[in-house]
Amino acid sequence: MGSALAAALLERGHETTVWNRSAHRAQPLVDRGARLAATPEEAIAASPLTIACVLDYEVLHAVLDPVAGSLAGKVLVNLTSGSPEQAHEAAAWARAHAADYLDGAIMTTPPGVGSPEMMFLYSGSHAVFEAHRPTLATLGDPLHLGTDPGLASLYDAALLGLMWSTMTGWLHGTALVGAEKTPATAFTPVAIRWLTAVAGFLTTYAPQVDAGRYPGDDATVDVQIAAIDHLIHAAAARGIDNALPELLKSAMERTKAAGHGSDSYASVIEILKKPADDK
Amino acid sequence: MGSALAAALLERGHETTVWNRSAHRAQPLVDRGARLAATPEEAIAASPLTIACVLDYEVLHAVLDPVAGSLAGKVLVNLTSGSPEQAHEAAAWARAHAADYLDGAIMTTPPGVGSPEMMFLYSGSHAVFEAHRPTLATLGDPLHLGTDPGLASLYDAALLGLMWSTMTGWLHGTALVGAEKTPATAFTPVAIRWLTAVAGFLTTYAPQVDAGRYPGDDATVDVQIAAIDHLIHAAAARGIDNALPELLKSAMERTKAAGHGSDSYASVIEILKKPADDK
Repeated sequence: MGSALAAALLERGHETTVWNRSAHRAQPLVDRGARLAATPEEAIAASPLTIACVLDYEVLHAVLDPVAGSLAGKVLVNLTSGSPEQAHEAAAWARAHAADYLDGAIMTTPPGVGSPEMMFLYSGSHAVFEAHRPTLATLGDPLHLGTDPGLASLYDAALLGLMWSTMTGWLHGTALVGAEKTPATAFTPVAIRWLTAVAGFLTTYAPQVDAGRYPGDDATVDVQIAAIDHLIHAAAARGIDNALPELLKSAMERTKAAGHGSDSYASVIEILKKPADDK
Repeated sequence: MGSALAAALLERGHETTVWNRSAHRAQPLVDRGARLAATPEEAIAASPLTIACVLDYEVLHAVLDPVAGSLAGKVLVNLTSGSPEQAHEAAAWARAHAADYLDGAIMTTPPGVGSPEMMFLYSGSHAVFEAHRPTLATLGDPLHLGTDPGLASLYDAALLGLMWSTMTGWLHGTALVGAEKTPATAFTPVAIRWLTAVAGFLTTYAPQVDAGRYPGDDATVDVQIAAIDHLIHAAAARGIDNALPELLKSAMERTKAAGHGSDSYASVIEILKKPADDK
């Protein structure tokens, strides 16, 4: 990922200094015009803006703690994946060393870096974000979520959760139609088109969540509970693991039991906000 | 839903005869130019094509069994929700009464009926589908999935499963960012944009599923397992139900245990195809 970030900066003509724990991995970037720093300190000294993207916060601190002093008066943009709490700690750490700090999350895979369609999420000082927006726009579309430095990580976790749910639901459906010899490549364009309709439902439901009222004008939880049995029976008849639809049905039934049977699916959030153990 | 279907036909100038168990519910359609049939038999006799959309197959048979003879030489398009097995039985029933039969599934809510963006799925005779495509196109975009009459129901179940997974993942993420005062209406546009990127992953993964080989070039199951802990911890710290991410993590871990740790997320389908009880 670090290589993809540096390559995007180089491609758009930014003077870029790179450092990697394994110097030879930076060679392709040097061939494309990057300057190779011998140490993290040298890399930080070379530019007003330092972008860090390593495996985790343990590695981040191992690299940066010994050279923290060199960050004074500079901007550190941290694209390392972690928790909101780790982002808060890193922001405090940067502040203690007189550095400006933005926390970020990369919402794409390395081949997507540099594409203006791909989202890069940032949180922290708005002024720092605006000052460096043109550089950050080289990597992807930069979105500033707010001044709380933990927001980028929090959104990252929430969006990855949406991704895993969506991908697993897609794989379950793919397994189901696959049992009747429909190839994944035939089912998937229909599934993707359907996701556009589902996105419309989310747009309808978002203001319901904010209002805490869930009018079931389009489809009620009761209707969804009846419909999910078709899925569970069809999948069971074809030997497909039903743990996911069973969990979804159980969430719907708890929602109904909480008095939301005639409400929209958005009311399921009421039971997600309260862990099952508390019931 | 029946009213929405009839209204779409009337709006596009189709001569439409309606019948409903509660005749007064058809009055708004009569006001818009529909002919009201006194009996199902009269409704069937009025047109070459009959569209049936009732609560379930029990109601369908209660309405049509007594008048089955009147369907001879006609086409029955059945948009009642049910299982692939029920669609097979209905197709055989229609054949026994010398009627042509298409099974269908409506992939929208009533307000979406009549929009050319909304998908209507059909399965059964291709010739019958082609003969009536112009009429069916009045209701939404008609897709013919194949001659097996169970395919529309099978796709319906698979797509609804994808919808519930996606909506629940979105609600979980909405609850997570909501715990830090981010409104659903702020998170949702970002989530919808992210779904476009996720759709790109599905397009990458579909041929992997068909090939039964899952190269983890973009992101491996191992990487996803590491990342989902951030979600689980962040949600647990905010009192949010983690049953869904825990289930997703467990599916990933079973996938890794089956030897797919360095493969892409698409390899999760290998464990969905084998129920957990069989392990």
